[in-house]
Amino acid sequence: MKRTPDRLSYAEAGVDIAAAEGLTRRLAHLAESTRSEGVQGRFGSFGGRFRISEDAELVASADGVGTKVLVARAADRHGTVGEDLVNHCVNDILTEGAVPLFFLDYFACGTLEPDVAFDVISGIARGCRENGCALLGGETAEMPGVYAPGDYDLAGFIVGRVSLPVPGRDSVSEGDLLIALPSSGLHTNGYSLARKVVFERLGLGLGDELPGTGESVADVLLRVHVSYLPFLRASCDRGAIRALAHITGGGIPGNLSRILPGDCDARVDVSTWDPGPLFGLLGRESGLEIDELYGTFNMGVGMIAAVSPDEVRQVLSEIDCEGGTGFVCGVVARGTGNVVLERAG
Amino acid sequence: MKRTPDRLSYAEAGVDIAAAEGLTRRLAHLAESTRSEGVQGRFGSFGGRFRISEDAELVASADGVGTKVLVARAADRHGTVGEDLVNHCVNDILTEGAVPLFFLDYFACGTLEPDVAFDVISGIARGCRENGCALLGGETAEMPGVYAPGDYDLAGFIVGRVSLPVPGRDSVSEGDLLIALPSSGLHTNGYSLARKVVFERLGLGLGDELPGTGESVADVLLRVHVSYLPFLRASCDRGAIRALAHITGGGIPGNLSRILPGDCDARVDVSTWDPGPLFGLLGRESGLEIDELYGTFNMGVGMIAAVSPDEVRQVLSEIDCEGGTGFVCGVVARGTGNVVLERAG
Repeated sequence: MKRTPDRLSYAEAGVDIAAAEGLTRRLAHLAESTRSEGVQGRFGSFGGRFRISEDAELVASADGVGTKVLVARAADRHGTVGEDLVNHCVNDILTEGAVPLFFLDYFACGTLEPDVAFDVISGIARGCRENGCALLGGETAEMPGVYAPGDYDLAGFIVGRVSLPVPGRDSVSEGDLLIALPSSGLHTNGYSLARKVVFERLGLGLGDELPGTGESVADVLLRVHVSYLPFLRASCDRGAIRALAHITGGGIPGNLSRILPGDCDARVDVSTWDPGPLFGLLGRESGLEIDELYGTFNMGVGMIAAVSPDEVRQVLSEIDCEGGTGFVCGVVARGTGNVVLERAG
Repeated sequence: MKRTPDRLSYAEAGVDIAAAEGLTRRLAHLAESTRSEGVQGRFGSFGGRFRISEDAELVASADGVGTKVLVARAADRHGTVGEDLVNHCVNDILTEGAVPLFFLDYFACGTLEPDVAFDVISGIARGCRENGCALLGGETAEMPGVYAPGDYDLAGFIVGRVSLPVPGRDSVSEGDLLIALPSSGLHTNGYSLARKVVFERLGLGLGDELPGTGESVADVLLRVHVSYLPFLRASCDRGAIRALAHITGGGIPGNLSRILPGDCDARVDVSTWDPGPLFGLLGRESGLEIDELYGTFNMGVGMIAAVSPDEVRQVLSEIDCEGGTGFVCGVVARGTGNVVLERAG
């Protein structure tokens, strides 16, 4: 692959994707060694499934918000990263047809600043309320020496119950259409690289306008990760969604591939949407090739649903009816499990 | 309270307990704002309870291992902190009568060193296997800028099912005896202060002998948090345990008080056990008063069970039968919800 001389990669921003992928395979073996009767499916889906009785199956997921916490800290605006975290988790388990039951948080910091911790966890509580999820507990840890004074990290754990028929990759087949739901920005992914581009390469400050947006860098970078549960619930509930891919780390290629059967490709027409000024700027200024760019950032799409062609119109109207927006961004074609980004328009 | 001139407190070690306690109260209100139908009981118990059907109640808990991770890093021995984390979580939900179903981890680091991450998560998997718990998923996050290169943090989240009749504080009454189960060391609590004493005040290195132990500082400080599930399961199963206090942050006073009804005190006779060389050294060298010392470290006791007098002999023999050790350390007396440390011997 051709590389432009001033190309910034995720590795150069300090994140080693290949090391992470190798590790993931080794960790799957570890997880397999603990398998018990209740465990359903394979390690590596968006959420782990656990059957607790004939009629009750749970899905659980753990997440963080990445270095978005550094933007929150720099901007001294701590009230929304908690909501990011909850919404991220809610989307993950939605792909398994689960609706949230409860959530627990882990907040760790170098020096406990009670007002900061309270702001962060207020965001978690708001995210929980908005998604009908109970905040059942959490851990607040003060760890001088691990975190610098003022620094903190945040992890969340969600448990939901399988309540919606979203059958998943085995039900996806040639001819299905791919409906994209827009993201609100970076969501919780790609911040290490985005921060390098925005703050170091462009030299922007948090209060500066992010070019082309009419909004401050802080506003754009801290925009809350969308919860897609309200937009997709009706369509999922009536069985109209075959599979859902939450577009997080790995972008569209890395996540859409998780809902593809081995004999299908996803052909995504990237000309069907405008990624908007933030992703446009990241594309220009990072110097990344298109595959790397779409493999790093969500590029304006936060969730993709695979839907049979005869359901598309109704699904789009249900999303719209709940205040969301959806559009057809591609199709499932005969293939070998690959995501192909093309520009048909 | 008299303070010795060279007294070290938790606050001086960088941890502000009072700020944490004020925050905990505010967070309880936030959690209340998210309460849904399934939530059982009050925020602030060792694990949050959630009823999912007529016959299934879950208990969930989130935890970290504190700055024990810094000892693991300094010693370059990463294989046991994961087991600490699982056992800590298992004990927390055991106090609610729950046995583990599944576990998820969050591992975050400054630079992903796959072998370190693998070692850490191997420890988690081993802890899961030993406790009959499935490792259902997890998140591995590389966060340069939040964590220094080589640094990491670790959080865990457990879900169990209420399967053992441990009725809790409302069943505890005057005359009940308190059975203590020994800890293996600091478990996962008090490391910020202990590190200050051992490394800074005494100037010991990880390979040095911890005075009086015949073992290295690293061996003593990294000893694995005990899971009390195997030792207590039989007694819990037949309803012989009224309540359990997991002795973590806050020590015996801070945790035993959580299982006391308002009209009872717990009178703990600290002469009934020898805290051993590690806690002896921490007591002498920290200069802490006895209340502070027992309110910071577990002082050699990892779990306390409240048991009616006529069950004590049988419970002790059941613990013994599973390879554990228990001894009567005190009694529940008429009072006002306080834990009184005394030296009757």
